[in-house]
Amino acid sequence: MLLSELSYSVAELAERFGLSSHGDGTHRIDGVGTLAGATASQLSFLSNSKYDAQLSATHAGVVVLREENLTSCPTAALIAKDPYVAYAKIAALFERLPSAPPGIHSSAVVAASARVSNSASIGPCCVIEDGAVIEDGAILGPHCMIGTDCTVGAQSRLVARVTLVIRVTLGKRVLVHPGAVIGSDGFGLAFDKDHWIKLPQLGGVRIGDDCEIGANTTIDRGALDDTVLEEDVRLDNQIQIAHNVYVGAHTAMAGCAAVAGSAKIGRYCMIGGNAGVLGHLELADRVTITAKSLVTSSIREPGEYSSGVPLQANLQWRKNAARFKHLDEYARRLSALEKDKNHE
Amino acid sequence: MLLSELSYSVAELAERFGLSSHGDGTHRIDGVGTLAGATASQLSFLSNSKYDAQLSATHAGVVVLREENLTSCPTAALIAKDPYVAYAKIAALFERLPSAPPGIHSSAVVAASARVSNSASIGPCCVIEDGAVIEDGAILGPHCMIGTDCTVGAQSRLVARVTLVIRVTLGKRVLVHPGAVIGSDGFGLAFDKDHWIKLPQLGGVRIGDDCEIGANTTIDRGALDDTVLEEDVRLDNQIQIAHNVYVGAHTAMAGCAAVAGSAKIGRYCMIGGNAGVLGHLELADRVTITAKSLVTSSIREPGEYSSGVPLQANLQWRKNAARFKHLDEYARRLSALEKDKNHE
Amino acid sequence: MLLSELSYSVAELAERFGLSSHGDGTHRIDGVGTLAGATASQLSFLSNSKYDAQLSATHAGVVVLREENLTSCPTAALIAKDPYVAYAKIAALFERLPSAPPGIHSSAVVAASARVSNSASIGPCCVIEDGAVIEDGAILGPHCMIGTDCTVGAQSRLVARVTLVIRVTLGKRVLVHPGAVIGSDGFGLAFDKDHWIKLPQLGGVRIGDDCEIGANTTIDRGALDDTVLEEDVRLDNQIQIAHNVYVGAHTAMAGCAAVAGSAKIGRYCMIGGNAGVLGHLELADRVTITAKSLVTSSIREPGEYSSGVPLQANLQWRKNAARFKHLDEYARRLSALEKDKNHE
Repeated sequence: MLLSELSYSVAELAERFGLSSHGDGTHRIDGVGTLAGATASQLSFLSNSKYDAQLSATHAGVVVLREENLTSCPTAALIAKDPYVAYAKIAALFERLPSAPPGIHSSAVVAASARVSNSASIGPCCVIEDGAVIEDGAILGPHCMIGTDCTVGAQSRLVARVTLVIRVTLGKRVLVHPGAVIGSDGFGLAFDKDHWIKLPQLGGVRIGDDCEIGANTTIDRGALDDTVLEEDVRLDNQIQIAHNVYVGAHTAMAGCAAVAGSAKIGRYCMIGGNAGVLGHLELADRVTITAKSLVTSSIREPGEYSSGVPLQANLQWRKNAARFKHLDEYARRLSALEKDKNHE
Repeated sequence: MLLSELSYSVAELAERFGLSSHGDGTHRIDGVGTLAGATASQLSFLSNSKYDAQLSATHAGVVVLREENLTSCPTAALIAKDPYVAYAKIAALFERLPSAPPGIHSSAVVAASARVSNSASIGPCCVIEDGAVIEDGAILGPHCMIGTDCTVGAQSRLVARVTLVIRVTLGKRVLVHPGAVIGSDGFGLAFDKDHWIKLPQLGGVRIGDDCEIGANTTIDRGALDDTVLEEDVRLDNQIQIAHNVYVGAHTAMAGCAAVAGSAKIGRYCMIGGNAGVLGHLELADRVTITAKSLVTSSIREPGEYSSGVPLQANLQWRKNAARFKHLDEYARRLSALEKDKNHE
Repeated sequence: MLLSELSYSVAELAERFGLSSHGDGTHRIDGVGTLAGATASQLSFLSNSKYDAQLSATHAGVVVLREENLTSCPTAALIAKDPYVAYAKIAALFERLPSAPPGIHSSAVVAASARVSNSASIGPCCVIEDGAVIEDGAILGPHCMIGTDCTVGAQSRLVARVTLVIRVTLGKRVLVHPGAVIGSDGFGLAFDKDHWIKLPQLGGVRIGDDCEIGANTTIDRGALDDTVLEEDVRLDNQIQIAHNVYVGAHTAMAGCAAVAGSAKIGRYCMIGGNAGVLGHLELADRVTITAKSLVTSSIREPGEYSSGVPLQANLQWRKNAARFKHLDEYARRLSALEKDKNHE
């Protein structure tokens, strides 16, 4: 557990985050922890009722919780309508990021035509190519490449080993994790009699403000128009976004999800882990797709959608799965029996 | 949209690509665009009938299309049997790749025993190890590693951050996108009573001419023999090819597909996004696997194959999915009813 | 095929690995090969009965096999109870790894506060940040980044381009393949009225001794507590391990498997390719999940579990898949028919 050098009193936290406090307001907090693991100098939170039972035994110095849980709290408390949101904001006080001093590390390679803000931090072994722009306060960790005609917006952070290939624009406060590749060639091929011909990928990628892109996620650039993520889109690790996909603001995708070419995802959508969306489809706003589901046609109404079959012990599953191959036949036989019944 | 400094007249394009033209042959084209977005100095195309309606309203300077669409075309036209293929060839004229001057960047680290052609371009922060060979005109973007005893064939291009681990041979004109790892250890383990023992992976990887390898795709080297891709194999992003897989020429795989160890995929196969092929199977030539399907036994006949169940609203899906666990029982009960019926 | 400069007599191999030998004990072996491909100076093995037929025709100099196969062996033999395990141990003699001399390459960038053992090997373009520790005999190939407060245990090997982000501890003899990212931010978000708020990820990652992490695999660090892999966990390529996952010792996962946040996987589990485990679940020891299955609730008993439906020719599959959407209705209609029957 990381301890910040800073500490805050319970009363200071209450005032800073607009929460009401109970118990000793002078008690000082220098970090955060789980209900089960937090010490007397740490703050914890109770949001999921699954953990209610841990509250009475916690050794945390203060707990962020809903008013209804206050009576079970053995220590100081901060009352929040949404304890998880309140906790997220408070915990940010205790995050210690590696230092990133302004300036260009001596091992970085920066093209003469690139423009790097004086307040930007360019880490070791970074490569910045022709026409690239790094705006104020942007941080590039080690091993990043900013390709030709790419822009990294102000206050954005590329943690390490991020590759922007060509014609990629990141908005402000974009956070990109290691291994992400943005602006790679879309998978555009035409079949010419007996072999493949490649379609040049002449578009780019536009990523809105406050987006987050996970580790080893890939986002291809567009064939003609751009691939687009609106603001506050949140992508987990190992997600694949194909060329000319358009993702609406505030949509979140869990690890290993994939969206095929030219699909248009609405705003406030939630795409589950390893779910897939086929190409050229449209998803309305506020559509949720559960894990490992495959979307094969457009979805016009908000709501939760799923595909797949449940897990079973292998021996039972084998029997059921074998029957699936005859489902159409069974349905016909069922109808035939019903018809016979009605004719009796 | 990228504009080339070059421009071509409609008549020049017709002649160069063997197409017949209609309308003003002197009109000059300096780029390409979609039917909806192209300007008067740009070329567009109509291949998918889904976009027929956009033709009459296009502002493109010239449109590549089938003869049957000519009457609806409000501007100059180039007639092609396959407009998509013709467009792919024409659009390549307007692609501007980052410059890659011959020579070795001062920040690259090249082993004394490596052989690098004078016409090859080795970018910043590349590392080339013992016994590696970089042939004529090959281009390595930033952050590539060419491991021991690897060869990069003539005119191949490793866009950036490509890692060839050991004993990897790329043919000519191979294109590899950022984050790809080729020649990593196959996942070979033997279970020795209570723990795992690793099998050394002593083979290599051979990639044929004109292959394309997507971003963050991984291709393991063989345990004893090599992992092989024949010529013109096209792999999208985040594909996993295990050790000793053999992929026939002209096969294409969409994003996040995976092939397990020692599987043998035929020629001209199409493997859909996130589809999987289990180990030691064989797929005939011209087999198509649709997205997210799992191949669990060998396929001897060409054709299209699928698995999975359709997406539904979650509440309906839950009811159906729960029933799947009893499918074998239902089939038995159906047969029992039929038997009763016949005995009446 | 790689040939070592070393060679061993059949008798030497028998003694070193405690095997009994048949045939010419003075015959010398300088490498390994498949039954079909090995030459007279190479050793091969027969473990899978699928290859029995290849034994009589082998040109290998010696074959590791079970006693029961001895009569069919045309050459010298080494008898083992588990020929695959014996072969794995013998073959390791013939693996030639790229040299990795102790010391720090001149192009590497090492923070003043980092501690690097004199016997460690730090390759070209590596970056080692504040407070990192590299223990005795550890090998870092090119392009690795060891972030703040990370430790690489003794004799561990990071093949190339491995990124440890922050607060990651690797045990001894850990092997990590290129493109792996360990210690990236967990995907922790709280929804605040109309936008996402990020939860700081304040934990780390602890990887036990003798673990292996595949190419382009991602392991997020914990939100508060650590993400943990016990000893001898074996992860293939492109696996996603979310924050606060706990994986028991000796568990192996095949390519593209994914485990969501806070799941707890037992010891000696086997997770198949592209299988998924949802968050906050528990899997008992010795659970096997077959390829592409999705685990949606905890599993308390050892054994093999599966989900999914079988592959079929697309036309047949379409008919069956369409029927799946009505499975609940069919089950009700079946029950209704049975009820009618019983009332007759």
